[in-house]
Amino acid sequence: MLILLDQDGVLADFDAGFHAAWQQHYPHTVIPAREHRRSFYLLEDLPPHLREQAEALYTSPGFISNLPPVPGALEAWQALESMGFTLRICSTPLQQYENCVAEKYQWVEKHLGRAATRQLVLTADKTLVAADLLIDDNPEITGARAPTWEHVLFDAPYNQTVVGKKRINWQNWRGVLAGVMYVGEY
Amino acid sequence: MLILLDQDGVLADFDAGFHAAWQQHYPHTVIPAREHRRSFYLLEDLPPHLREQAEALYTSPGFISNLPPVPGALEAWQALESMGFTLRICSTPLQQYENCVAEKYQWVEKHLGRAATRQLVLTADKTLVAADLLIDDNPEITGARAPTWEHVLFDAPYNQTVVGKKRINWQNWRGVLAGVMYVGEY
Repeated sequence: MLILLDQDGVLADFDAGFHAAWQQHYPHTVIPAREHRRSFYLLEDLPPHLREQAEALYTSPGFISNLPPVPGALEAWQALESMGFTLRICSTPLQQYENCVAEKYQWVEKHLGRAATRQLVLTADKTLVAADLLIDDNPEITGARAPTWEHVLFDAPYNQTVVGKKRINWQNWRGVLAGVMYVGEY
Repeated sequence: MLILLDQDGVLADFDAGFHAAWQQHYPHTVIPAREHRRSFYLLEDLPPHLREQAEALYTSPGFISNLPPVPGALEAWQALESMGFTLRICSTPLQQYENCVAEKYQWVEKHLGRAATRQLVLTADKTLVAADLLIDDNPEITGARAPTWEHVLFDAPYNQTVVGKKRINWQNWRGVLAGVMYVGEY
């Protein structure tokens, strides 16, 4: 049983990192709190005149590598590994790849160990990656092929209106996976 | 029709770059010429006492991004794209990912254009990537899954003993692909 885990928003807390960086650089400019996000794309939830400085923040050196883990994600990773699931981290780099790609590996090394960097798959098109499940907060994942995985939506404020997909978070994941995959034996 | 192209050894001339760097740094220490390579793994073709300095060369900043293209590779890429094939570059980063990963994107941007960086898939396990064909100089590609692609072996001195796979290079590729895929209509 092979499970793909998205990195940003599922393992690495992009939103928390962004809000901390914003608060540090622009303490007097209020932006929507995470719970008021409505779009998967951060920039779309910001007024146009703030987008350039927002982009500069999340593409700056150290932003990706210093993201905090999503609460519960590291514990879930270890539990899933010990249950015998084959895990891969499946991540789409920012189009501004310059700092992002190496830092995605650094983040994995820091939080999951150097060996886990071999479990990272970087691709702009996740439909090309074969697996049983993809756990991802992106409400709509499209690409060149019909995916082999079932998309299990990782709960986020900006995907609450999506229907027709199972939802998961790092509190309820054991029950959700048991329902998805008949893993009662684990 | 989706074709995966390996990066090092198929698009980027790792061997040529390595021999140029070696010649520059160690002009008085002779190493086997490319045509005498017998292992896919460069280090295995070097005497043990030279491996550490070889590794230092190919993991150094700028090594990957400055690799020359394999002769004919860029022309073949453009021709394949204009024929309507869906192309992806499927590459396994060095375990020493630090300089390698961003430089793989830089190489693609430099030789194929910035948009083509979205066609790059980095993975230690190529069996997870769905495609019709994988063009790769690695004689044996294994991983967690049975691949959906047919492996077409990109000709190299170190894979000449491999039997049972179709062979391709950037001189004969049109004929080989026509034979593999009935693409006579192109």
